[in-house]
Amino acid sequence: MDVRAHIEAHRDEFVSSLKEWLAIPSISADPAHHPDVVRSARWLADHLTATGFPTVEVWQTPGLPAVFAEWPAADPDAPTVLVYGHHDVQPVDPVQEWETDPFTPTERGTSLFARGASDDKGQVLFHALGVSAALAASGADAPPVTLKLLVEGEEESGSVHFADLMRANRDRLACDVAVISDTTMWAADTPSMCVGMRGVTDVEISLYGPGRDLHSGSFGGAVPNPLKAMSDLLSGLHDEDGRVAVPGFHDGVVEASQEERDLIARLPFDEREWLATAASTATWGERGYSTLERIWLRPTAEINGMWGGHTGSGGKTVVPRSAHAKVSFRLVPGQDPLHVQDRVRAYVEAVTPEGLRAETEFGGPGVRACASDLSSTALKAARSAMERAFGTQVLFTREGGSGPEADIADILGAPLVFLAVGLDEDRIHAPNEKVEVPLLLKGAESAAYLWEELGGVG
Amino acid sequence: MDVRAHIEAHRDEFVSSLKEWLAIPSISADPAHHPDVVRSARWLADHLTATGFPTVEVWQTPGLPAVFAEWPAADPDAPTVLVYGHHDVQPVDPVQEWETDPFTPTERGTSLFARGASDDKGQVLFHALGVSAALAASGADAPPVTLKLLVEGEEESGSVHFADLMRANRDRLACDVAVISDTTMWAADTPSMCVGMRGVTDVEISLYGPGRDLHSGSFGGAVPNPLKAMSDLLSGLHDEDGRVAVPGFHDGVVEASQEERDLIARLPFDEREWLATAASTATWGERGYSTLERIWLRPTAEINGMWGGHTGSGGKTVVPRSAHAKVSFRLVPGQDPLHVQDRVRAYVEAVTPEGLRAETEFGGPGVRACASDLSSTALKAARSAMERAFGTQVLFTREGGSGPEADIADILGAPLVFLAVGLDEDRIHAPNEKVEVPLLLKGAESAAYLWEELGGVG
Repeated sequence: MDVRAHIEAHRDEFVSSLKEWLAIPSISADPAHHPDVVRSARWLADHLTATGFPTVEVWQTPGLPAVFAEWPAADPDAPTVLVYGHHDVQPVDPVQEWETDPFTPTERGTSLFARGASDDKGQVLFHALGVSAALAASGADAPPVTLKLLVEGEEESGSVHFADLMRANRDRLACDVAVISDTTMWAADTPSMCVGMRGVTDVEISLYGPGRDLHSGSFGGAVPNPLKAMSDLLSGLHDEDGRVAVPGFHDGVVEASQEERDLIARLPFDEREWLATAASTATWGERGYSTLERIWLRPTAEINGMWGGHTGSGGKTVVPRSAHAKVSFRLVPGQDPLHVQDRVRAYVEAVTPEGLRAETEFGGPGVRACASDLSSTALKAARSAMERAFGTQVLFTREGGSGPEADIADILGAPLVFLAVGLDEDRIHAPNEKVEVPLLLKGAESAAYLWEELGGVG
Repeated sequence: MDVRAHIEAHRDEFVSSLKEWLAIPSISADPAHHPDVVRSARWLADHLTATGFPTVEVWQTPGLPAVFAEWPAADPDAPTVLVYGHHDVQPVDPVQEWETDPFTPTERGTSLFARGASDDKGQVLFHALGVSAALAASGADAPPVTLKLLVEGEEESGSVHFADLMRANRDRLACDVAVISDTTMWAADTPSMCVGMRGVTDVEISLYGPGRDLHSGSFGGAVPNPLKAMSDLLSGLHDEDGRVAVPGFHDGVVEASQEERDLIARLPFDEREWLATAASTATWGERGYSTLERIWLRPTAEINGMWGGHTGSGGKTVVPRSAHAKVSFRLVPGQDPLHVQDRVRAYVEAVTPEGLRAETEFGGPGVRACASDLSSTALKAARSAMERAFGTQVLFTREGGSGPEADIADILGAPLVFLAVGLDEDRIHAPNEKVEVPLLLKGAESAAYLWEELGGVG
């Protein structure tokens, strides 16, 4: 029985299992649901054991548990693949906007509605079906690659213990490639692979001036105004072309290849529709780049908040004593968040006028961007696997923000490949989350082919 | 008996009367003290009647009463002079910082401590002593000018009914020159006259962008950010030389004369001391002007407040839906506040990028600047009168902000002359307000000489 036939034959069983898992409200951000996250880990461990994984463990953390499973290839020289996903889910507020109960999984047409259906339980579970299908098709009793699964339980609450967990288990997690199944495709009829995610670092900048708010009648126009200086500072973050103008900010940037830009240009992008999603009436950004390139390929500086002086009603003619701003920088491959922080600190110092004192406070070490190497064997294998499953060309996308993926690449030293079948319209993080069951089956099929391709069997 | 001898002979009587008046807590900003403001008006009316003014009236307003008094010159062709002052006082908080009770007037050395001693009861009352001295010296039973006094009761709470009061009584207030006794001199040993006050207009600017806060990972760098646009807008309010860069803002500006700039340069200005007063460590301002010129002679734009996006603790990577700023513009003679508002509105529209919507809300019609004509007879007479009283050259100053003075000039169509003997160190509006009694006597003397000079008697 070939891969696709096996998967189709086990469709109902797969959906039934997934519903069982989705019924567990594993909301990691809500302490009241922490026992459910533990139950969810247990359920997954049992399911992977039943699937045939010889090693299945629930890994405790100072927070909520992850699940680790391993199924060695028969050939000790076969590559090792680590699949990453998560079994915790987002909260469900506002719950009254759900058409059916978020934890009573409900099929309507090809869609399966439930919190976590797309993000990420459905996309974790298709791997179990995928490996079963690969074995059924080959008749072997071990997969063509050594398959490891690491499914964390705190992704929706910031993955706070995940990096430490990986560091503590670096040897057991060692792999040749990490497969991330927690992203989306362009559209159901436009299968695509995510090949990169921007990183981020954020800073709070404060400028301090007069020892107290001054009356602007007496002093206005003769001492430096922290809000004016902050406006100059923030205005200077970009040049006239909308490019970040902090000296040294772009150090190390690895530009996207022309091939990738060409493939991005082939995506059926509707800017009007995108603007509607962005609740905006016009685009803006770095000259020379399309909207998708601005979101995916370009590093940015974004002012997230700003305050100072009199912000209440009515007028109050003061020269304020201080000004504050929060700025986040989206980073692209090649940028080191700590170097960016250093350059931002230097920029702030350089533009702070005499008479003001600047403070910069960074929100942690930041997150590196991650990207797949488009010329790598693993990437080509994954693309080929998806093309076999979908029967059409697979395009490339990126994502504008990121989760713990860069940590996976950094800590495990493995290239990333994103294999996922979620859709933007799946309403992850929102009421009425759903997943397309036919796409989950394509995901399972893609996974099965990927193990073949990587194991040299395909 | 000459003017000075008369004044010295009546010193104790003057101080005794002033103490009586200062004991009335006429705080206009505090409704609990409104009966005291009424008592204060009554006290002044009685005092002016006792001084010999033939006409003394308490003028009611929708708020607190003003006092009007008139003493016609014997010569019907003599000029008419209107003296402006106020009989209400500032609140006394924090009252525990007063060394003696603010409404128990206390002499220590040459100083008389009480709320209102300098601002403005002492400076109103010296006019009564001044006219008595002028009459005693001349032996006449009417002053050499027709003398009108208008002493309002709401100056410290915004003079809200004062313009209407003047308009309603324009005929009775008609005058050839208005003498304002509510400012300060440079120092006790550096007598000076204020010859101008900046005007002001203020605006709240709002920029609206996305219909909701957007996730900057998904949208950052591809839609216009209202805080970035606001930073650009505010940064563009000044050019590189610190000059206001709003096109048309300077329309009509009447530059100060070189004579005035030369006289300002002769003031013994200690910039270190001034910086200490400003609780600042460096000056800033329009290139080509000294600190005093920046405060007194130059129109400015000052950002008083600004806010938008995430202002709480921690990071929140949003593209905010809106940004807001409060800006006030200090104006100089020749600038029309309504024209400035028009130019600011046009500037905001011009720099608002596509995709954002701008709103400008001005805080009322604004206040024109006012200035004395340095070549006018009245100004020369007042300077000469002060120089006779003080026995030394009188320099010129201006003030950076303004009260209702511009309305007086506008509504009554009279040139302004500032005759006042307060000091910056009098701590007006602060605990332990005081006045120098010898300076009040010099004020009375200056007033007596001024009536002589203006009446052609001197």
